[in-house]
Amino acid sequence: MPRYFAAIVIVSALSASSSVLSATPQDTVRFEPTVAQPTFAVREPVLRVRPGTVLVSRTMFGPYYTEAGGAFPGEVGPIYVEGATTNDMLVVKILRIRPNHPIAASQIYADFGGLATDSKVRLLNDPIPPRRYIWRLDRERMTGRTELPDSRVKSIEIELKPMLGRVAVAPRGQEAFAGLWPGDFGGNMDAQEVREGTTVYLPIFHDGAYFYFGDGHARQGEGEVAGTGLETSMDVILQLDLIRGKRIDWPRLEDADYIMVAGSGRPLIDAFRLAHVELIEWLGEYGFGKWDAYALLSQVAESSVANIVDPAYTVVAKFPKRYLPR
Amino acid sequence: MPRYFAAIVIVSALSASSSVLSATPQDTVRFEPTVAQPTFAVREPVLRVRPGTVLVSRTMFGPYYTEAGGAFPGEVGPIYVEGATTNDMLVVKILRIRPNHPIAASQIYADFGGLATDSKVRLLNDPIPPRRYIWRLDRERMTGRTELPDSRVKSIEIELKPMLGRVAVAPRGQEAFAGLWPGDFGGNMDAQEVREGTTVYLPIFHDGAYFYFGDGHARQGEGEVAGTGLETSMDVILQLDLIRGKRIDWPRLEDADYIMVAGSGRPLIDAFRLAHVELIEWLGEYGFGKWDAYALLSQVAESSVANIVDPAYTVVAKFPKRYLPR
Amino acid sequence: MPRYFAAIVIVSALSASSSVLSATPQDTVRFEPTVAQPTFAVREPVLRVRPGTVLVSRTMFGPYYTEAGGAFPGEVGPIYVEGATTNDMLVVKILRIRPNHPIAASQIYADFGGLATDSKVRLLNDPIPPRRYIWRLDRERMTGRTELPDSRVKSIEIELKPMLGRVAVAPRGQEAFAGLWPGDFGGNMDAQEVREGTTVYLPIFHDGAYFYFGDGHARQGEGEVAGTGLETSMDVILQLDLIRGKRIDWPRLEDADYIMVAGSGRPLIDAFRLAHVELIEWLGEYGFGKWDAYALLSQVAESSVANIVDPAYTVVAKFPKRYLPR
Amino acid sequence: MPRYFAAIVIVSALSASSSVLSATPQDTVRFEPTVAQPTFAVREPVLRVRPGTVLVSRTMFGPYYTEAGGAFPGEVGPIYVEGATTNDMLVVKILRIRPNHPIAASQIYADFGGLATDSKVRLLNDPIPPRRYIWRLDRERMTGRTELPDSRVKSIEIELKPMLGRVAVAPRGQEAFAGLWPGDFGGNMDAQEVREGTTVYLPIFHDGAYFYFGDGHARQGEGEVAGTGLETSMDVILQLDLIRGKRIDWPRLEDADYIMVAGSGRPLIDAFRLAHVELIEWLGEYGFGKWDAYALLSQVAESSVANIVDPAYTVVAKFPKRYLPR
Repeated sequence: MPRYFAAIVIVSALSASSSVLSATPQDTVRFEPTVAQPTFAVREPVLRVRPGTVLVSRTMFGPYYTEAGGAFPGEVGPIYVEGATTNDMLVVKILRIRPNHPIAASQIYADFGGLATDSKVRLLNDPIPPRRYIWRLDRERMTGRTELPDSRVKSIEIELKPMLGRVAVAPRGQEAFAGLWPGDFGGNMDAQEVREGTTVYLPIFHDGAYFYFGDGHARQGEGEVAGTGLETSMDVILQLDLIRGKRIDWPRLEDADYIMVAGSGRPLIDAFRLAHVELIEWLGEYGFGKWDAYALLSQVAESSVANIVDPAYTVVAKFPKRYLPR
Repeated sequence: MPRYFAAIVIVSALSASSSVLSATPQDTVRFEPTVAQPTFAVREPVLRVRPGTVLVSRTMFGPYYTEAGGAFPGEVGPIYVEGATTNDMLVVKILRIRPNHPIAASQIYADFGGLATDSKVRLLNDPIPPRRYIWRLDRERMTGRTELPDSRVKSIEIELKPMLGRVAVAPRGQEAFAGLWPGDFGGNMDAQEVREGTTVYLPIFHDGAYFYFGDGHARQGEGEVAGTGLETSMDVILQLDLIRGKRIDWPRLEDADYIMVAGSGRPLIDAFRLAHVELIEWLGEYGFGKWDAYALLSQVAESSVANIVDPAYTVVAKFPKRYLPR
Repeated sequence: MPRYFAAIVIVSALSASSSVLSATPQDTVRFEPTVAQPTFAVREPVLRVRPGTVLVSRTMFGPYYTEAGGAFPGEVGPIYVEGATTNDMLVVKILRIRPNHPIAASQIYADFGGLATDSKVRLLNDPIPPRRYIWRLDRERMTGRTELPDSRVKSIEIELKPMLGRVAVAPRGQEAFAGLWPGDFGGNMDAQEVREGTTVYLPIFHDGAYFYFGDGHARQGEGEVAGTGLETSMDVILQLDLIRGKRIDWPRLEDADYIMVAGSGRPLIDAFRLAHVELIEWLGEYGFGKWDAYALLSQVAESSVANIVDPAYTVVAKFPKRYLPR
Repeated sequence: MPRYFAAIVIVSALSASSSVLSATPQDTVRFEPTVAQPTFAVREPVLRVRPGTVLVSRTMFGPYYTEAGGAFPGEVGPIYVEGATTNDMLVVKILRIRPNHPIAASQIYADFGGLATDSKVRLLNDPIPPRRYIWRLDRERMTGRTELPDSRVKSIEIELKPMLGRVAVAPRGQEAFAGLWPGDFGGNMDAQEVREGTTVYLPIFHDGAYFYFGDGHARQGEGEVAGTGLETSMDVILQLDLIRGKRIDWPRLEDADYIMVAGSGRPLIDAFRLAHVELIEWLGEYGFGKWDAYALLSQVAESSVANIVDPAYTVVAKFPKRYLPR
């Protein structure tokens, strides 16, 4: 994992928090975010970068991540990628995601969550009680520990697997979606696969792409069933690039082992189908016939249910790269 | 994997196909099935075994598995487990599942499948064209190869990962479900996790349990999206046992790494929630408080969508055993 | 088999139903049911009738309908229709459905219902409290009154609109579905439209059809949201007939104003789509092109959500007869 | 119906299309819209009115409604209601909705529609063919006629039942939803019940409410299954008022016969449940206990599936006013 970091040699002195900053010649930019955004939308960029830029930055910090708790701070962005057009595909290489804060918080909500009634899944049952868990992070050993107030075992320690809940471009048209939304623009997909070593490909709906990121999870289970991961602040290193003349409809991901499509929608089956149908279309680019690809997915597809809590659910459909033609 | 087989040394000479057969003293029974069943239901048992019996048998063979194709042969069973009551839990240890036939077949159907319209998901679009793929199995190397008529690459070889699509008890009451159905009785869950090394725990709705098995897949992707795996005939070795005085509502699975619950239902989100809520109840047996378990699942749960094609969909919710208290 | 027939006295000259009844004297059979069936399935018929027979009968009575409450009594049937084949369509004209008991019961369940968690819709919330309501029926005025223990107004009176929750044939193959299930065989559709003046057309999966009926509701809301209507015992007069050489896939209904299809499935959208796609196919029989029919439904379709509580949900799609070509 | 119009005698000379316009003393304002909005969002109001104002206006016109076809023109609004706060409820009395154009258009789309695959319901089937139907409106007789190119009967005439697909306030926070979206802010509910004689109550998320309307349908079936109604331009008369100190979560409707809640969401069952649970809460305001109301809905609820095509589906749950306490 840390291999990528070696590639980032020089981080130039930066005029840090200023709102617009061109990439330095070596294409490495350190950006200290100062403004948190409540929606994914076209708005005045906080930064402008050239394609290929390595971005050394961090997610927004706020009371949400403290012991006391508080409001979610919002996203970093939008970052305008110079020369990006709606005919291109945005490439986001995730070089590094690491917690930079000694605690993480997770929660259970009375009105948000996947295994209980919430504001979108209304039933007549009484709501469940809210809870908040503070996790002490050991960033050397990459573990987190929390107390379990109601359990026979009084605390538990788990390994950290840092990821970003949200990477996005501005959505199509004049729409503005709150940070909780995932969609064809990426957004709050809450996919574990958005981690170090993964490249995320995003469609571009507006010239400049208007890239956003945020929502660090030191660890998160599949489905993010209670509505949060180990929410904490993250140092991130991302490389932003373009593939020109390439249009996609939904976010694609790639790591050492898989090509993947992240489909978001409700109901869950629609997200599942969308991700897999788009994956079959991607396999077509590798020379697989549509029906052959369908038949093959029935034998080798893997998938993860990324979230079942957000306004749209997200499913990641995966095809093992070892079965791709050379 | 083959480790288990070593444990089964002596298989006594058996009067094979007769309809009722007591367990031999060493509790190993070889059973050659001759009758294929079209439903999971209470009916005259084909075999009676004592708890603890190791069953050396095979799935039913039929034209379905041949190059020409034909009807699905149905299930083996019911096997009556002596002394099993509705207060007990049936334990099915999967010691061995291996293809015993040189080919496997997979299909695409016009009226059955997860990524296209079918008889339950009716839309106005024209149906997709049916297809049949024959896979040549190399049972030494444990690989299968098929031709891809519409693709640039003309054939593909994949590793085999044998599993049983169906393990079941007779469902509650007087219901009789066709072999395509999964449910709380197990049935056609089409879960990859039903493989060598896994133990399946099933509820018992009728004294004697009335155990069924069948539907060997030499390999199957998550979701079984086109409606079939590599369908072929299997040699199986199963140990059937009871845990007395233990009642469960839905099938549980356990392997070296996970405790798991297989929930089946439609829509997909209901299967997903059911599996996870039942898993939280199981975690309660390990001393986790309900809300602690919910909060913890949000960080460490894994899951697989076993099938999205059967009359009920199946989701397997998983909790890593390394986080269970010792 | 014909031994049951002895129990059937011939009832001529029916004062019977006000509405419309054209049966000839010799085609009228009074049947007093004595056996309640727990499943829809092929089994020994309780009655054999000729096509065209007017059946004067009643639903099964049991403690379920009493003040004290108790188990549901099950269905009346199967009734074997002489000469019915799988190439024919069963015609069930509903001539009369009237409560024959002074009370009806409705319930709220902790584990069954559409607006709360239940055994199929599992969430972590606490279950809701069970409740039972006794309704006093005024069969002259056709009204029912119950007490509302938790409300400012202490009782409420509503008009009765009697219907049958269940009309069915034996399902295909060797399947046996408990009485709660609706499906392509009809069954527990819980559709208000199954009332006096409606004709129900059912597919036939076995020679003889094996017709069942039961589950009288003196009144029921759309969706049957809490899981019951005003459950009570009913006198019924049904005419059973055949249309030969006509095969259908799903139950059709017809009354003075609409042709209708009842689609059952989960999720709800699948039931909705299935009912409407089948209705478009029916419109094809009237000479509407498929796309014209689709476009037209978008302007004139009506529908009712019959139930959202049963193992499959039911939606009735309706096309106004005044827009059918003469 | 036309009774309402008589009440609006004097429409003062208005500076019509100007962007901000105070209500005249008699509280009747004629507003000629000139700007069409692509999203429901907080933006500069096109009009400011006092509570109680009767608004005489029309929906936006554009090529969408012509024989040739073209882009949808967008919504009228936002209209700022003076004094409206987030503690109040917006009251929209629909006094008149009448087509003002001689034709209406309806369509079938390859990528949008409820009974076929579309951009959100992706499957592998080939898409359906797009179609466009022109309906000639007879505004005297209130009928529309179109040709049916594929049918035995060559044209069809249906009665008009004018309605507005969209009435909305600006959604919460900084979100901006394209005009296709319904939600708790109202929006594109496509509910037939939004017609003359109905009062719509909307929550207010921003001071001033920011009211929008548009999307006239001369007729529309339940579900709007193919994605359009008889789309045409409408004259509308709406009275905008406030109920102060009253907060609601979801749109409520009321006409002579019913109190109603319009719930929007996906999957369909979630919209259905949400509408009914909110209706039970409303019934609480009339003195019905929660469980009594649930039990009662199971007997007397009616509902309509308003749309199954928009980004969220809409269900209208209805309670007959004759069962409300006096």
